[in-house]
Amino acid sequence: MSTVTILGAGLMGSALAYPLSDNGHSVRLVGTFLDDPTIASCKERHFHPRLRRSLPDKASAFYFSELDEALDGAGIIVSGVNSLGVHWIGKTLGPRLREGQILIAVTKGLESAPAGNPRILPEVLRDEFPAGIRDTLPIAAIGGPCIAGELAGRRQSFVMFGCRDPAALEVLAATFSTSYYHVTTTTDLVGLEYCAALKNAYTLGVGLAAGMLEREGGPDHAEAYMHNLAAALFAQGTTEMARFLEITGSRRELAYMLPGAGDLYVTAQGGRTVRLGRLLGSGKSYAESRLILDGETLEAAEIVKTLGRVLPSLEAKGLLAKDELPLLRSLISIVVDGSAAVLPYSSFFRHYHES
Amino acid sequence: MSTVTILGAGLMGSALAYPLSDNGHSVRLVGTFLDDPTIASCKERHFHPRLRRSLPDKASAFYFSELDEALDGAGIIVSGVNSLGVHWIGKTLGPRLREGQILIAVTKGLESAPAGNPRILPEVLRDEFPAGIRDTLPIAAIGGPCIAGELAGRRQSFVMFGCRDPAALEVLAATFSTSYYHVTTTTDLVGLEYCAALKNAYTLGVGLAAGMLEREGGPDHAEAYMHNLAAALFAQGTTEMARFLEITGSRRELAYMLPGAGDLYVTAQGGRTVRLGRLLGSGKSYAESRLILDGETLEAAEIVKTLGRVLPSLEAKGLLAKDELPLLRSLISIVVDGSAAVLPYSSFFRHYHES
Repeated sequence: MSTVTILGAGLMGSALAYPLSDNGHSVRLVGTFLDDPTIASCKERHFHPRLRRSLPDKASAFYFSELDEALDGAGIIVSGVNSLGVHWIGKTLGPRLREGQILIAVTKGLESAPAGNPRILPEVLRDEFPAGIRDTLPIAAIGGPCIAGELAGRRQSFVMFGCRDPAALEVLAATFSTSYYHVTTTTDLVGLEYCAALKNAYTLGVGLAAGMLEREGGPDHAEAYMHNLAAALFAQGTTEMARFLEITGSRRELAYMLPGAGDLYVTAQGGRTVRLGRLLGSGKSYAESRLILDGETLEAAEIVKTLGRVLPSLEAKGLLAKDELPLLRSLISIVVDGSAAVLPYSSFFRHYHES
Repeated sequence: MSTVTILGAGLMGSALAYPLSDNGHSVRLVGTFLDDPTIASCKERHFHPRLRRSLPDKASAFYFSELDEALDGAGIIVSGVNSLGVHWIGKTLGPRLREGQILIAVTKGLESAPAGNPRILPEVLRDEFPAGIRDTLPIAAIGGPCIAGELAGRRQSFVMFGCRDPAALEVLAATFSTSYYHVTTTTDLVGLEYCAALKNAYTLGVGLAAGMLEREGGPDHAEAYMHNLAAALFAQGTTEMARFLEITGSRRELAYMLPGAGDLYVTAQGGRTVRLGRLLGSGKSYAESRLILDGETLEAAEIVKTLGRVLPSLEAKGLLAKDELPLLRSLISIVVDGSAAVLPYSSFFRHYHES
């Protein structure tokens, strides 16, 4: 049995404590400085207020000030912060890492280098580490459809772990897998992370359909909705994902697997990104929609902005034609340029229906 | 402008009259012997009672007894019957077909030859035609996510036409495409039809999750649903679809395009197949579920039964291992053998996560 330290007591980081504890591992859940109330409840009542559940048996909670104690003897470290905290967690963990440990990150997102090259968050994280540990510590990430509250409720969940190091992947899969948390693996870490980012962008795309239906006054007298459009946006999304994976040297099959179609399906069931998409589809500008969703982290919008910097770099390298990925380009135009949600339907599927 | 004759006044056949009429074609909608009340309304009030809409301007209705008149001068013929009517329509149309015509079928389904070889419905149809016309007449089919009522309501819809004859495909796409009915094309007719059949089977799979949630008493105190499981079943479905396409010599990319992920997405939004899946997932046997859904055509169940005959033939040819397609095998076991809906979770994704 190992000791696993989770840094960040948000929903997904905390939810991983359940399968780990059920497997008999000792789990240490460490809050960031934002998580003090959560950690206080976990310490005093063994109850996680955001997950609305008791902590699992073998989990114990630590304040951020107790980080060093929580990391002592840990074999696996989980980075459980959101995309805004990636640089911070890299700087925080870096000097404390030891050879032989494995890091796994739950964070979804994407950054771009100044020239527009896409950088997956595990790489961003690694670059914050000291030179000695940077190239020896395996860094893994989690993709696939997993709502944290369901995992903590021990509902059947299927994910994909990605890591360039197959031995580390094997250790991770064995450590986390339970009868309800099913872990498949890939060494295509980059492809997995691209899917995690792209599915957020395309969820925004699928969400547009509900807003467009509102703008046209809802279902008509014969109850015609816009499910056909939503499904087409879904498939245009998975098709563009496959193309993005292909031109960046990843496995385009991920587009129909858990990280692509699976994660897009679960994300499109509801939540912040769908709400933003609906507002945009109904005719609100991105600026207006942001005001309406005041206070919510618009992760999908940040990813779309990043992709707006990434696409020109792919074009400059001759990897991408200017008329490819029309749905993604529309989303960029809506979010970055404040354009209205008018979609170039006739360019959908044009490039990809024969190969 | 052409004359297009649609045989079968069901929802999908009739809905195609709208884009055709909007493109200025003369549309003749012919009922089968089951459609007399529909045709009577269309003739008397220019109103389609099942679509709950006026017929489009350039459409006129014909009783089955007026078939010869309706076929006179038709350049394109649409087969608009369901899978039960395929042999009948083949026998009915066969002697009346003329060289130079193009046939396009809306029917989804799958048959199997006595040895278990899968036979797509356009081939079943063709085999009913007289020898002279059988090998010269292009036969096309329609795949992709399209709810008929939305198409008739002129909602944005994106489909894929499949035909082995590229010239016929071009004619069809030009004839049917409008600003709201977007037609992409493929010469992989077999792959397109496999997707249309498989997506019905896998919709049953996705539907199981809702029933399993019911069986466990619904969402728990912290509102954990089973969206993760539904998404995993969705992705297992598209992944198995890709594998099925691959081993039968089709394009596995269809699995993330309109005919695969797109059509599965729209079908999983609701309807008969989802209801059947939910009943099965809740613990009812197939026999009990059939009684509850009395009177409804369980097309998905028929397709699952056919696939139960097809898989052994693929195994016999050495194309498929016995432990592949575990979700499809579970569905076969549930529908054909009356087994309980207990899914082999640990075998999901095992084969396909690296390639």
